Amino acid sequence: MERHFERDLAELQERLLWMGSLAERSVHQAIHAVLDSDEKLAQNVLEEEDAINELQIELDDRVVQLLALQQLMAVDLRFVLAVSRINVDLERIGDQAVNIAESAQRILRHPRVKPYVDLPRMSELAEEMVRDSLNAVVRRDSELAKSVLLRDDQVDRLRDQIFRELLTYMMTDSSVVFPTFDLILVAKNLERVGDHATNIAEDVIYMVAGRDVRHHAPDRR
Amino acid sequence: MERHFERDLAELQERLLWMGSLAERSVHQAIHAVLDSDEKLAQNVLEEEDAINELQIELDDRVVQLLALQQLMAVDLRFVLAVSRINVDLERIGDQAVNIAESAQRILRHPRVKPYVDLPRMSELAEEMVRDSLNAVVRRDSELAKSVLLRDDQVDRLRDQIFRELLTYMMTDSSVVFPTFDLILVAKNLERVGDHATNIAEDVIYMVAGRDVRHHAPDRR
Repeated sequence: MERHFERDLAELQERLLWMGSLAERSVHQAIHAVLDSDEKLAQNVLEEEDAINELQIELDDRVVQLLALQQLMAVDLRFVLAVSRINVDLERIGDQAVNIAESAQRILRHPRVKPYVDLPRMSELAEEMVRDSLNAVVRRDSELAKSVLLRDDQVDRLRDQIFRELLTYMMTDSSVVFPTFDLILVAKNLERVGDHATNIAEDVIYMVAGRDVRHHAPDRR
Repeated sequence: MERHFERDLAELQERLLWMGSLAERSVHQAIHAVLDSDEKLAQNVLEEEDAINELQIELDDRVVQLLALQQLMAVDLRFVLAVSRINVDLERIGDQAVNIAESAQRILRHPRVKPYVDLPRMSELAEEMVRDSLNAVVRRDSELAKSVLLRDDQVDRLRDQIFRELLTYMMTDSSVVFPTFDLILVAKNLERVGDHATNIAEDVIYMVAGRDVRHHAPDRR
């Protein structure tokens, strides 16, 4: 019985990581649809959305079964509850990728408004945060998780810079207002990817330490 | 023992609803800071943020204790898991209210850019969705929850309308780009309030029926 249950926990983590890798790839493809003007990548993201959604349902079922059949020890209970939440964040990361892919499709109908400088940096940072938050889950590594929390401020600063630049650009040429606004939405979506990675990192710290770090992290609005 | 545990479940729900009412009030005050040009309301929201954050931590503790001490029946297990997630959504609704309050403070430094027509309608709809999603929790009412899901499309349509109007406005007068952009952010925040209410409604349907309705709802991106 004990063994069986340990195997279930290991499988739960494995499936969560698989879902995480799909979500990561979606974000990567969606943002590169914009950066490399590659319509095909946007299409991929839209096609792969279902796989992520199905994994969310599967993971929730696994969580309920584990909690229903087992009286878990505190440490395992915290892990299972963390998975139940991380699951939601990963699915939302997938949603953000879909939003970016849809913006990409609209953006690609117009000539490129300006060279992208901060957007690639922002997307690298956000993708790295997702990757490291999941690495922190696997290694139960609060230090790595804390480094994710710290990076959220950088993402927010880049977002503000991108907003300022693009709004100024709108002021100089009113004909680009609509396509430029889609770039603003992309930056907003990347910000939310970073927020979800931050949520995952907070769940890791809670899971490891058994105490709550939320609302004690540096202000990240 | 049985009694004790039923009382714990009832208390859990009561505290969740209290948190819900604080989150609702924050959204209401934040949006009225914008609509009625009332700086004091924005200030209130910023001051009341901590209360919501503390309730989130309290509710999580209650969830862990219930799961650790009790082997719950399926129906109660689903309720407790739903609370654990609704809790996150309510805290995020509070975050959106704070974002709106901060936008309000910036917006109020400028003359009003245009009469607000769609924004009040959008905020009423979003607030109503939150209220009804919580009513659906209390009454275990899937029909009411489903009506919340349907209303999310209306919120998204209003958001698109507001975006279009404000962007067109930016094109005609480049001096209003920055304050107008803050109104766009407010609409974006209200959209997310509606999204969180939708999440809560989905949790209610799952809790009542024991099956997953997510990803079967009308497209609401």
